[in-house]
Amino acid sequence: MTSEARYSPRETALLIVDPYNDFLSEGGKLWPRGREVAERVGLLDHMRTVLAAARGRGCRVFIVPHHRTTPGDYRTWDHLSPSQQRLVANQAFAEGSWGGEWHPDFRPREDEIVIGQHWASSGFANTDLDLMLKQHGIRKILLIGMRANTCVDTTARFAQELGYHVTLVRDAIGSFSWEEMTATFDLNAPLYAHAVLTTDEFVGLMDGEDGEGGGGGGDFR
Amino acid sequence: MTSEARYSPRETALLIVDPYNDFLSEGGKLWPRGREVAERVGLLDHMRTVLAAARGRGCRVFIVPHHRTTPGDYRTWDHLSPSQQRLVANQAFAEGSWGGEWHPDFRPREDEIVIGQHWASSGFANTDLDLMLKQHGIRKILLIGMRANTCVDTTARFAQELGYHVTLVRDAIGSFSWEEMTATFDLNAPLYAHAVLTTDEFVGLMDGEDGEGGGGGGDFR
Amino acid sequence: MTSEARYSPRETALLIVDPYNDFLSEGGKLWPRGREVAERVGLLDHMRTVLAAARGRGCRVFIVPHHRTTPGDYRTWDHLSPSQQRLVANQAFAEGSWGGEWHPDFRPREDEIVIGQHWASSGFANTDLDLMLKQHGIRKILLIGMRANTCVDTTARFAQELGYHVTLVRDAIGSFSWEEMTATFDLNAPLYAHAVLTTDEFVGLMDGEDGEGGGGGGDFR
Amino acid sequence: MTSEARYSPRETALLIVDPYNDFLSEGGKLWPRGREVAERVGLLDHMRTVLAAARGRGCRVFIVPHHRTTPGDYRTWDHLSPSQQRLVANQAFAEGSWGGEWHPDFRPREDEIVIGQHWASSGFANTDLDLMLKQHGIRKILLIGMRANTCVDTTARFAQELGYHVTLVRDAIGSFSWEEMTATFDLNAPLYAHAVLTTDEFVGLMDGEDGEGGGGGGDFR
Repeated sequence: MTSEARYSPRETALLIVDPYNDFLSEGGKLWPRGREVAERVGLLDHMRTVLAAARGRGCRVFIVPHHRTTPGDYRTWDHLSPSQQRLVANQAFAEGSWGGEWHPDFRPREDEIVIGQHWASSGFANTDLDLMLKQHGIRKILLIGMRANTCVDTTARFAQELGYHVTLVRDAIGSFSWEEMTATFDLNAPLYAHAVLTTDEFVGLMDGEDGEGGGGGGDFR
Repeated sequence: MTSEARYSPRETALLIVDPYNDFLSEGGKLWPRGREVAERVGLLDHMRTVLAAARGRGCRVFIVPHHRTTPGDYRTWDHLSPSQQRLVANQAFAEGSWGGEWHPDFRPREDEIVIGQHWASSGFANTDLDLMLKQHGIRKILLIGMRANTCVDTTARFAQELGYHVTLVRDAIGSFSWEEMTATFDLNAPLYAHAVLTTDEFVGLMDGEDGEGGGGGGDFR
Repeated sequence: MTSEARYSPRETALLIVDPYNDFLSEGGKLWPRGREVAERVGLLDHMRTVLAAARGRGCRVFIVPHHRTTPGDYRTWDHLSPSQQRLVANQAFAEGSWGGEWHPDFRPREDEIVIGQHWASSGFANTDLDLMLKQHGIRKILLIGMRANTCVDTTARFAQELGYHVTLVRDAIGSFSWEEMTATFDLNAPLYAHAVLTTDEFVGLMDGEDGEGGGGGGDFR
Repeated sequence: MTSEARYSPRETALLIVDPYNDFLSEGGKLWPRGREVAERVGLLDHMRTVLAAARGRGCRVFIVPHHRTTPGDYRTWDHLSPSQQRLVANQAFAEGSWGGEWHPDFRPREDEIVIGQHWASSGFANTDLDLMLKQHGIRKILLIGMRANTCVDTTARFAQELGYHVTLVRDAIGSFSWEEMTATFDLNAPLYAHAVLTTDEFVGLMDGEDGEGGGGGGDFR
């Protein structure tokens, strides 16, 4: 089996979850909370590597963004989740702010599609993500970005439930604590995800001729 | 605010996730894997207490069951999740088997509704759960049953994304390891769930006059 | 049974579908195609009357808008529907244009919510409409606006499938031909909708004390 | 462009909607209501021809069935649709009855999949149809069966909204009146469906070398 068969560029999309300055950039509102894990896994470099590899092989790239916060959000809602209550307080990803802009290394190029903003954690819920994946022939998704046990985990769970083949690139995903990382990648994702890979393993699977380069995890069929 | 206002029986439903003998009964295929946690939290007794309290107050009860396994399942599917691969191997919840019957203490009564079977972990995905909740005026759900970090967690995440008020009764939910319990109830659910309660807290909220009996966690508004 | 019981303001929302100048205003791109029906049923006046009645009784109002067209839309999609092909050609509801602004009589007030834009005909598909209805306690929806057999019909079918109580106010809904009106209101909606009312019947049901004022159609329970 | 490119068997599925004896067989409860249209279009013969052509070319076949009626259905529901009220009365497709069995010519073969039963008209709503299509790589669907302006129309509208390429084979679909047929195939489907074909046109597209055999309607790209 060739690597093309495993992650055919025609059928595989890279989903970058919430690549906002507030999450990923020095000076971002949530960067201090994510910095330790980001530096430990080499988050930014690995995100850049995965993005370059995906673009290089012709995979489609989608941005999957959280709702950009405004002061009036949720004021008529019946029941906010704790995460939403926190967003009301800290106004992360504020509409019109630098923190609510894309990190400069993860801005979409022309023909890269920005999905509708999600209100909670799933990039699929209440958005056009499923429609857009279908209209572009995508059957396998790769997830990178922020935050392991919230938006990434929930988007990945939805994807698997909806019928997609789901791969998490674990060192191109960040979070706010190491406990969140191990809960996601060692405990939960191994039960539902079709592959949990490192960036090196992913690049090996994309580039290799024989598809053996990636080591374990990439061949679940 | 009275407890009725918090969990009005007219708007609150108890969802019992996967109450199969294979999960909950001595002799069940997966009981050995869940026994240690079940005994540690008093799972069966707490499930009985919550169910009795919910029925006693007139809350609707729904059974949210996993697909009953048959030998031919998935044979034409493109990509099984690791959990589904395991089900193919162990044939838990087999159609027509004792293990695929309801634990005797959690059989639905007349007018308690059995939702369509789910193929993966979310009780909402590919089933009529959302429709049934709406047709019965339900806006708040309580989750008990198996398994904390898979079907319970994923069903709860979907519920929050779909707009429901979500409560997990943490000692009426089991799992296969203590790590799965803490990942679910200490790390993940506190970010998305509107309440994480013990059975005692829940019963206090349902029975109390002033709604103060339950201690923290029940009043998120 | 009182009229409140039938359309309780707490549980009922008015959904205004696609109230764009291009559909509803003299000079709009699609106004010439809809004018004959609009004048025959008294569309604008009836829409104003229903909106005033709904606001007057304290029903929530939601705008359910079609995607605002841009020149680059769909260019990477695999298969456009005929309606989408036409939108590429005529650029109706163009982003930034007068035609893509709300008709002045149907602009949302503060606390009236604009739902995410839909790509095809269903206001529910790929948007946050279902979430927003749940977060505001809505169980019954009233539909007015454009166009009877496309966005109104499809949104109504989705609503019924998702578990909502669905009412169409037939003389506050327009279309491009009388055949489309009769197909929708005489042939199709009577099979799935819980009520098909005239504006007078609706106002009678909202205002009447005994709920008998509306004549047939309003009492499906 | 070859016919394979248009309806590649690998990506195309035939969906047979509600092929129950009650709809399609002499003696079925609803057969008297559908007989006139069925005979006028040659419904049964065309359904057989399309099914044979689809099987012959290796397209996947799915049965998309309505809920099999039982006396207790809906008794706790808040608001039934008119169609559901009628089903309570006539008990069509009754569980365990001959009328609720597949018409003998449209029974699924081994490896042909029966989708979860739908409660209203959309084969997608509250069922695993979308999941199953994805797990089998399907991007284009062909619809045949009953009833043009209810289950077929609503399933087709959902399919288009969800991102599928949708084809209706108009003389392999029946209904209860000619008005329902023209409303569906001349008024509504031409706005959302990617193709509306006759059986001859469909077979021509499947069999032809050059894909020109089908005449108009099959080439929407």
